[in-house]
Amino acid sequence: MSSECSKCGKKAVYLRRYTAEKLCESCLVDTTIDRVRRAINRHQMLKEDDRIAVAISGGKDSAVLLHILQQIEERFPESEIVPVTIDEGIHGYRDQALESARNLSTSLGLDLQVFSFKDLFGHTLDSIIASREGISLGACSYCGVFRRRALNVAAERLGADVIATGHNMDDEAQTVLMNVLRGDSSRLARTNVKRNRSIEGLVPRVKPIMVLSERDIVAYSHVLDLPYHDVPCPYATEAYRNDVRHFLNEMEHKRPGTLITLLRSGEAISDAFQKISTGGTMGYCERCGSPSPSKVCKVCELLDKMEN
Amino acid sequence: MSSECSKCGKKAVYLRRYTAEKLCESCLVDTTIDRVRRAINRHQMLKEDDRIAVAISGGKDSAVLLHILQQIEERFPESEIVPVTIDEGIHGYRDQALESARNLSTSLGLDLQVFSFKDLFGHTLDSIIASREGISLGACSYCGVFRRRALNVAAERLGADVIATGHNMDDEAQTVLMNVLRGDSSRLARTNVKRNRSIEGLVPRVKPIMVLSERDIVAYSHVLDLPYHDVPCPYATEAYRNDVRHFLNEMEHKRPGTLITLLRSGEAISDAFQKISTGGTMGYCERCGSPSPSKVCKVCELLDKMEN
Repeated sequence: MSSECSKCGKKAVYLRRYTAEKLCESCLVDTTIDRVRRAINRHQMLKEDDRIAVAISGGKDSAVLLHILQQIEERFPESEIVPVTIDEGIHGYRDQALESARNLSTSLGLDLQVFSFKDLFGHTLDSIIASREGISLGACSYCGVFRRRALNVAAERLGADVIATGHNMDDEAQTVLMNVLRGDSSRLARTNVKRNRSIEGLVPRVKPIMVLSERDIVAYSHVLDLPYHDVPCPYATEAYRNDVRHFLNEMEHKRPGTLITLLRSGEAISDAFQKISTGGTMGYCERCGSPSPSKVCKVCELLDKMEN
Repeated sequence: MSSECSKCGKKAVYLRRYTAEKLCESCLVDTTIDRVRRAINRHQMLKEDDRIAVAISGGKDSAVLLHILQQIEERFPESEIVPVTIDEGIHGYRDQALESARNLSTSLGLDLQVFSFKDLFGHTLDSIIASREGISLGACSYCGVFRRRALNVAAERLGADVIATGHNMDDEAQTVLMNVLRGDSSRLARTNVKRNRSIEGLVPRVKPIMVLSERDIVAYSHVLDLPYHDVPCPYATEAYRNDVRHFLNEMEHKRPGTLITLLRSGEAISDAFQKISTGGTMGYCERCGSPSPSKVCKVCELLDKMEN
């Protein structure tokens, strides 16, 4: 790119297409942090004295999340950041990603906390998948259910007030579209739950980098040379999400701003469903006591299936 | 297709993929009519003594709509079908389509009623487009505003109780997705307005063939050899809809049922928005008295622009 930074006139290295900003390295970093700071304020994601569990996968999204949050939270001496990784037990994949997560945490002067499926549930994801003959659910469905629970248990044990995850704009837009295409109204209602509406027994979750596109994140981590692990999970074969991603990437390319608009659409839809929902269907699992819409929660149900 | 009809065992000529029915010619026709009949009943689209204005473009969707409605309404001697065409004034296109519409109506023993933009508004679409230098709105936006009004005026003059339009499953699914992608909540709330919620001053509209896919419609009209005009409008350059159509066609091909699910999703979203809407923003145009959310309706606004 031969032109000048829209902010300071220096040499631009990045075009943020959906805002039409041409940015030099330093303004790219500053505006990226600023986008996240404004999102945190606007949606009241964090409080000044929060102990924040930051979910770190080892990949670029959570690397950028941790890096940005640390800079934002420097201004709030009563807040605290605790990076957490869930080790699902995926041989040859998670061990490498863990290494990246640890390097990143160390480089930021933070101590990575690791919780494993094996310790929490008695099984690694590898052993679950190996044993699930005749069970139709895909690996990602198992992993999602267990990982969600694991992160909540981890946050509780660490005394965290809130969990921050590295979902980016692309991820979230894909999820909105997938839920609309699947006609899953209850899931549409459950996405975008605000921190102040969180459910007793679940540590509230926030997504501070939902306002950054994948391109923004790649550019930010590239300029700052953040260490991250860039290998896809060996179980990931999400054909549906891939189709949706491909379509949205094309639409965003042709009509920059499509992803943001889709996110706003998702928020409005989610708000409307939450307003008309009678609520009250969430109880507690009679086995483990976790919040659950059914008598026995999904985690206990899956563990049962494995043991029988 | 070498296999047998799922209904009667005769030679199948059509696979309705989203229901997994293999159908012979006669069962294809019967089940198609039956799908429409059930949709009419379920959504209470029509009453036994309705005078039904059926919007006929000359194309295959409205040809199939008219053909099916006539068979369904045969059982209701107090009902009446009036085919109506709006002549926008598009040289070399609408005149041919009108011919098809007239042939179809005559073949069914019906008398086609034609209302023109020229008579109703003093301008043809050709003259509007020719004069709209410096106005950014596309031809389809003009045409949509005027056609909607024209159809309402026509239905009122014909004493119709209801207007039936030939929107099919593909059209409607595309519209839902476009509205979600555009984040247009108010438009999402306005789609799928039930007949009993229609607005004073607007003849209620129903979409009986929303439950038929474009493939269903092509198959039905092919088997019955219905006359229709299959040339796209010369002004149609709907790049956005084309992108969405292409994506949804692929998704429906890979995962039959995607379109129906998307329609249900659209209905649920529309219901939720309607429930939370405070309503009351619809008044009447101070020029022409038509229902309008703003002081001067869109039709009068566009006509004004043309005359100044």
